[in-house]
Amino acid sequence: MAENIGMAARAMLNCDIQEMRLVNPRESHLSEKALSASSGADIILKNAKVYKSTEDAIADCDYIYATTARRRGMIKPIRTAHFAANEILATPNHRYGILFGPERTGLHNDDVCLADSIIEIPLNPEHCSLNLSQAVLLVGYEWYQQHINPSEQEFILGKTTFANKEKVVLFLKTLEKKLETSGIFSQPEKKQHMQINLRNIFTRAQITEQELNTLYGVINHLNITEHK
Amino acid sequence: MAENIGMAARAMLNCDIQEMRLVNPRESHLSEKALSASSGADIILKNAKVYKSTEDAIADCDYIYATTARRRGMIKPIRTAHFAANEILATPNHRYGILFGPERTGLHNDDVCLADSIIEIPLNPEHCSLNLSQAVLLVGYEWYQQHINPSEQEFILGKTTFANKEKVVLFLKTLEKKLETSGIFSQPEKKQHMQINLRNIFTRAQITEQELNTLYGVINHLNITEHK
Repeated sequence: MAENIGMAARAMLNCDIQEMRLVNPRESHLSEKALSASSGADIILKNAKVYKSTEDAIADCDYIYATTARRRGMIKPIRTAHFAANEILATPNHRYGILFGPERTGLHNDDVCLADSIIEIPLNPEHCSLNLSQAVLLVGYEWYQQHINPSEQEFILGKTTFANKEKVVLFLKTLEKKLETSGIFSQPEKKQHMQINLRNIFTRAQITEQELNTLYGVINHLNITEHK
Repeated sequence: MAENIGMAARAMLNCDIQEMRLVNPRESHLSEKALSASSGADIILKNAKVYKSTEDAIADCDYIYATTARRRGMIKPIRTAHFAANEILATPNHRYGILFGPERTGLHNDDVCLADSIIEIPLNPEHCSLNLSQAVLLVGYEWYQQHINPSEQEFILGKTTFANKEKVVLFLKTLEKKLETSGIFSQPEKKQHMQINLRNIFTRAQITEQELNTLYGVINHLNITEHK
């Protein structure tokens, strides 16, 4: 159906996979419904090629994966999507194709046996049904992650920078001095306990210079109101 | 919208994530539309809880991730979905929540700043828009993969077993004998070359006992027709 084709195109472009091939689609991939469902992935649909048979569609490929949800008693190696993505990137001299079946029925056995191996996406066995575009998205996602190898974590700082330790310690001392004045440190053991906790909190929070200004604003204001 | 809630429930159950919390949903998560869109993930919708505010919804959690597609000049650590899944599994004494925003607008800044960190899903920067259920699926998928740690590859054998080397070599010798009789090995250097290729092909194919029977059937039949 046109909507499934459009949504599959969207998922492909999400993962920077460009080349869509369609075997005997029931509805046109250039219909209004398909273009609308692609949410802006028109380029995939416009460049898609239509074939009369799976054999024709895979003719220039060297290695074919078939994606299937259920096992069919076929003697064939299986990979996770993760493993397949790794294989594809590790063997760039192969030209790879990945077969996805129609929404309801999945791939026909005649198509699966043309594949070198099967991709199975490990999901909750009690509820593993995916629609076509979700299967495309997950297989594409695995490929894209391994292809771009993104940095796993980052800290958004915007226009500020982390406050260095000198500035953080200066702030903590200012805070402690204000608290001293307020009389909260009446017992020496309580003082030490509170100081350690405050130092731990503000160290763990990885304060930026911009935020340090906000904190100075707060404690200066509190101080004024306490001395009224 | 009810359909988005239903599809998100489906994606959650795909990844064996059970607990859905909704903040001020516009439409009911128990409507016919929501149940139908969940494709059988009714249990998630029936157990879902509705809250008046994000603060209420996250009250009993210890650590909150916010999923966002665009950066908002907020000073906050960012993780990939992969890294976040790893954190969640590595620190089981935390009770985690993951915030997803409504389909069009995404999360409000007032919600994002309640989160300990942000999950960004690395996708094609030219086309990174996902619908709500796809974002839920990708974050859930990363968690589920690391949770179950599936074996990366397998070989479906069904009721047969791999033919052991004795049987494969016996088959190769039978094949070579038939070919000898047929006169194809006229030149000795050609014979060696063909033998090596045939041995490589049938070794690489990891033949099973069942398939070996098929191959014997084929070469025995060919032999008969050649000797007619």
